[in-house]
Amino acid sequence: MESKSSDLISLIKSRRSRRNFIFQKVDNNTIKEIIECGRWAPSGNNTQPWKVCIVTHPTVKRMLAELSDYGGIMESAYANLVIFLDKERGYDRVKDLQAIGAFTQSLLLGIHAKGLGAVWIGEILKNKEKVDEIFKFPTEKYELMCVIALGVIDEALESKKVEERERREIDEFIDWF
Amino acid sequence: MESKSSDLISLIKSRRSRRNFIFQKVDNNTIKEIIECGRWAPSGNNTQPWKVCIVTHPTVKRMLAELSDYGGIMESAYANLVIFLDKERGYDRVKDLQAIGAFTQSLLLGIHAKGLGAVWIGEILKNKEKVDEIFKFPTEKYELMCVIALGVIDEALESKKVEERERREIDEFIDWF
Repeated sequence: MESKSSDLISLIKSRRSRRNFIFQKVDNNTIKEIIECGRWAPSGNNTQPWKVCIVTHPTVKRMLAELSDYGGIMESAYANLVIFLDKERGYDRVKDLQAIGAFTQSLLLGIHAKGLGAVWIGEILKNKEKVDEIFKFPTEKYELMCVIALGVIDEALESKKVEERERREIDEFIDWF
Repeated sequence: MESKSSDLISLIKSRRSRRNFIFQKVDNNTIKEIIECGRWAPSGNNTQPWKVCIVTHPTVKRMLAELSDYGGIMESAYANLVIFLDKERGYDRVKDLQAIGAFTQSLLLGIHAKGLGAVWIGEILKNKEKVDEIFKFPTEKYELMCVIALGVIDEALESKKVEERERREIDEFIDWF
């Protein structure tokens, strides 16, 4: 149990954004297992206020990619998981947005556990109305939250990255009482 | 790797809220390892807009507990992790709140990996100004986000729970494109 526990802690700590993918299919069952990880995320009053569009069709991916400065990454990824807040299920803006964050992180960790790569793209929110037009959802019900670009990691390209994004030391942001 | 992968997926899927704790200390190094899991959470522009007060002192726990309907759980937990948004680090309300959710879920999964239990308490936000008074932080810098009550699980009491909170089937919230 102890070694299993430290393996799992290591996996949580070793997740990083991946932006370089090879062209390889990810099978639908793997994607479903990843979504299952999000399914069990916590949410205020257990409202589960999330909706996910799994986009693999090249035309739809292209349409999305045109709405982001990171479109190149989105197109090269096998799938784009387009995450929406379901406003009819939500009940408190702060808690709903936190639930979406918990849900998204659960997906990212599931992807990492599967040995796949992903990056969380929030920048596309600047074009959220145009994303709504693609999916034709009622805007009073669904609000775009982010896109996860997901694919098989291009290890050759990823290994060339000289530095990774740093994190603050924990003593910078904790206090004991 | 494959079995390690399915272990992590199982871990993510098996996390649940725990509300019954025994009185037993959790050592500070374990708490630090849990916080390390959050340290590596993703955030928009890598702003890492989080702050955590780790409260174990009985008097401070009591003061917090009086501000929540779930005070009994908070007092019986060994530690209360009081999570704030660092508004000086944040840059976009929607993305900052999502980052806090990702951070919080990383802590909850780290706690679960350690075999400990926790529950995410958002309801205390109704008294956020009073929580600010306890910590005396400048309110223009820090905004209360939630409390995680963390402790050693009382397995006897937890096993008596007849039902767990349900989740929607994934087909209810996914679409394929």
